[in-house]
Formats: sequence, C-alpha cells, structure tokens
Amino acid sequence: MGLELYLDLLSQPCRAVYLFAKKNHIPFELKNVELFKDSILGTKVPGAEAEGGATHPSGSQRKETTRVKKVPILKDETFILSEGTAILLYLSRKYNTPDHWYPSDLQKRAKVDEYLSWHQATIRSNAPKTMWIKVLIPLLTGQPLPPEKLQEVMDGLAMALDYFEGLFLQDKPFLVGSEVSLADLVAIVDLMQPVGVGCDIFKDRPRLVEWRKRTEDVIGKELFLQAHELILNISKLSTIQIDPQLKEQLAPVLLKMMR
Amino acid sequence: MGLELYLDLLSQPCRAVYLFAKKNHIPFELKNVELFKDSILGTKVPGAEAEGGATHPSGSQRKETTRVKKVPILKDETFILSEGTAILLYLSRKYNTPDHWYPSDLQKRAKVDEYLSWHQATIRSNAPKTMWIKVLIPLLTGQPLPPEKLQEVMDGLAMALDYFEGLFLQDKPFLVGSEVSLADLVAIVDLMQPVGVGCDIFKDRPRLVEWRKRTEDVIGKELFLQAHELILNISKLSTIQIDPQLKEQLAPVLLKMMR
Repeated sequence: MGLELYLDLLSQPCRAVYLFAKKNHIPFELKNVELFKDSILGTKVPGAEAEGGATHPSGSQRKETTRVKKVPILKDETFILSEGTAILLYLSRKYNTPDHWYPSDLQKRAKVDEYLSWHQATIRSNAPKTMWIKVLIPLLTGQPLPPEKLQEVMDGLAMALDYFEGLFLQDKPFLVGSEVSLADLVAIVDLMQPVGVGCDIFKDRPRLVEWRKRTEDVIGKELFLQAHELILNISKLSTIQIDPQLKEQLAPVLLKMMR
Repeated sequence: MGLELYLDLLSQPCRAVYLFAKKNHIPFELKNVELFKDSILGTKVPGAEAEGGATHPSGSQRKETTRVKKVPILKDETFILSEGTAILLYLSRKYNTPDHWYPSDLQKRAKVDEYLSWHQATIRSNAPKTMWIKVLIPLLTGQPLPPEKLQEVMDGLAMALDYFEGLFLQDKPFLVGSEVSLADLVAIVDLMQPVGVGCDIFKDRPRLVEWRKRTEDVIGKELFLQAHELILNISKLSTIQIDPQLKEQLAPVLLKMMR
C-alpha cells in the first residue's frame, strides 16, 4: 500500500493535487470520491470531517454528527493529511519536486506562502460559489437563486481579480516570477471553477488570459484538460437523480453558505 | 534600516507575528498601526491593500478605490510581505528559529501546514467576528446587533472548537505533538479575540483550558499578557471619538461582513 489520494476532480484543491502529482510523476493510487453524484453522506473517507457540518456537535449529540466527506485527503501508509495546500507542500518535500514549485529562495518562497494564504479569503471564498449558485443549489434545492446572489459573488471575484493582477501577477509571467509555482497552480484551478459554469471571468482581462495560457502550457494542455473534464461538463450533472435525504440534510448548510 | 513590522496588536495575526519575533529575539522596529483608533483610511502602509474594500475597483473607478489598511506587514529593506502566516514562515527561515516552531520532520511539518490552512475557514473566520459584533460594529454604527448574530458566530465557533479538540489537539500537549509550533501560536491568538470581548469560549472545555495554559507558559506569561493588553482592554475603545467619514465608509463593508 503506497500513496493514496482521495479526490473528486469537481473540487478545485483536488485538481491542484491531481495535477501536481501527475505533472511530477509521483506514483499514487487515485481513490475517486464522488461528492455530489452518489451521496455526500456516503462512504467514509479516512480522517474525513466536515468543514461545514449540518448540525452543531455538542454534548451527547456529538457522536451522531453528520460527517460530510472532505477532499482532498492524502493517505501515505498510516499517515493521513487533509487540506490541499498542506498536501501540495508535503508532496513537494517528500518527492523533492523541481525547485520552481516552491522556491528555496527565501523571498520567492515567502511570496508563494503569501499567495497561498491571501487567496483563501478572496479568490477561494468567491470562485467556487459560482458553481454552487449556478449548478449545485438549483440541483439540490430544486430552485434557482435570485440573480443578485450571483452578481454579488461576481463582484467579490472581480475585486479579488483586480488585486490578483495588480498586487500579485503585475507584469511577471507567473505569480512569483519567471517560473510557475504552487501559487499559479492553486490559482488556475480556482479560476476554472467559474469558467466551468459559464462565468467568463477572463473577459476584458488580457493580462490574466496570457497568464492562464502560460500556466496551462507549462502544466501541459492534455493533462490540464483531463483534470478539468468534469468541471467543464458540469451541466450534465443536472440530469442526475439526487438522494432526497441528501437534499434535506444539505438545505441548512446551503442556506448558511449563501447568505 | 533593518526589519520593520507594521502591526496593530488588536489584530490576531499581528499578535502572532509580534509574539514570534519577541520570543525568538528577532530584532525589529515596531511600526504601530492603529486601525481603529485614528482612522482606518489614514496613513498609507507600504504595500497595504484592502482585504475587503468599500467599493468595487473597476474600469475608471480603479484609481479612486478606498485603500483600507492591512496588517501585519513585514518590511525587510526593500522586501515587503503581507499575510501573517507568510510572515511567520519567513521569519522562521531567515532567523533559523528553533525547529519545534515549524518542524523539519516531514509529517509534523505537514500537520502544521494542515492547521494553518484549516483554521482560516473555521476558527479565523469566526473568532474575530465576536469583536466586530460586540465592540466595533456598535461603536462604528452606533447600533448594537441583534443577539442572534452573536449566537450564530458562537455556534460556528463551538463547532470549529469541537473539531479543533477532536481532530487536531486530541490528547497531545500541543497541536502537533509534545512541543509548541506555529499552529499553537496562530490558534491561541485567534482564541483570545473572543476572550477579550467577554465570550467565554473555554467554558466546559477542560482540555482546551489546559492547552491554553501550556501555550501561554511556553510563550511566557509576561510577554503573552503584554501582547494581549490591548484586546483585553478593548472595552475602553468605546470612549474613543470616531471619524464620521470613517463611519460612513465602513458601513457597507460592515453590513456585508455581518450578513
């Protein structure tokens, strides 16, 4: 039993981990987790826990808490690790991947860390919501959301992208300089989430378009498309039957997320 | 001109950076930024930008965007770095601080990374809101928030703390094992934010109380209290006159934050 990666390629951190492992020829066994197709409450993933569980686990109720699957998960023999960023860094160290991914240069490495932290409350907190608003919530609740909800997320994303371009990318080929790093990888998978659901966030942003092309090229067009096949065909998800129990359990979580 | 740290000790990542630098005898010049006392729109901090600006900077409006100060900021000669986590890692590498802060052991380091990522959407996204709800919003808007708002944040925080205890701390002395790490430092400063505004999040959590005591002891009681003096006396903030322009500009940001 070697390295196992529990991934659902609909999730952007999973795609980052997948692309990184594939690109760097890291041998791993892919454990496919299908968060939305089967049931989010289904098979237990090792070490998986909720980021946003449906109920508050307190006192005697603790044991009955709904355990929502969480991906990505890395399992390396008995060692279990969650969080996309932590998994990417672990793989880069264990498999001694090329320096440009996480540069040993003190300042460049700090700039990668800066992006990996910054993106969480900006790009990461907005980009995936487009998928929830346009596809998953209508699918799970049977109701579309008012257009203002999408506009609000798109506004937040536009502001984040202004900072992305102005403060991080600037006039450099990649976020941290002349070579691709984990920052670019984490960024591109985030930004493909709105693209997959038909939100053209690259419109009127030529600098961003150029960066996207460079990043896709360096990862490899074929591998990039393979990892994004699912998200780029997400509209087909709407033909899937959804477990009624799943709908019921997810409703309060969804409502809270979209407030 | 050596290392400069732009900090406001009311902010939890600033306290982490301050404690880390002081505890490790890293020489730096403290540049005090007072986000709320003077004006959040005041003196420009090098490289400072908004995490949540008041208006959406697009097209011709871009230049007029309100620039909200952001802390912590590190300035090392011409090198400027934001994001608390990135600054802590930069300092640990540049000043070669004791290994336990960011262990060279592959799995322990991965566990620190896992916490540093996980806490952002859980502890960090809830704990500081207690200060906004109980002190800053009433001060800036002149109106208290309905009690449900605080309850909602406290529920989110309670759930996050269940995972903190059950998944991260478990029965270990510190989050990653027998020694204190950056994970504990980042966690303790977050959890002091609710404490400062009178929310007793340690109630009925003996394991968390023990961990807090151990973490305070290893940082040093005196230094810990010095860094937390401001947050533990935050109620005195309410006597400060607030710039009317500041109130006006912050209102939409506050409303959005608290939705």
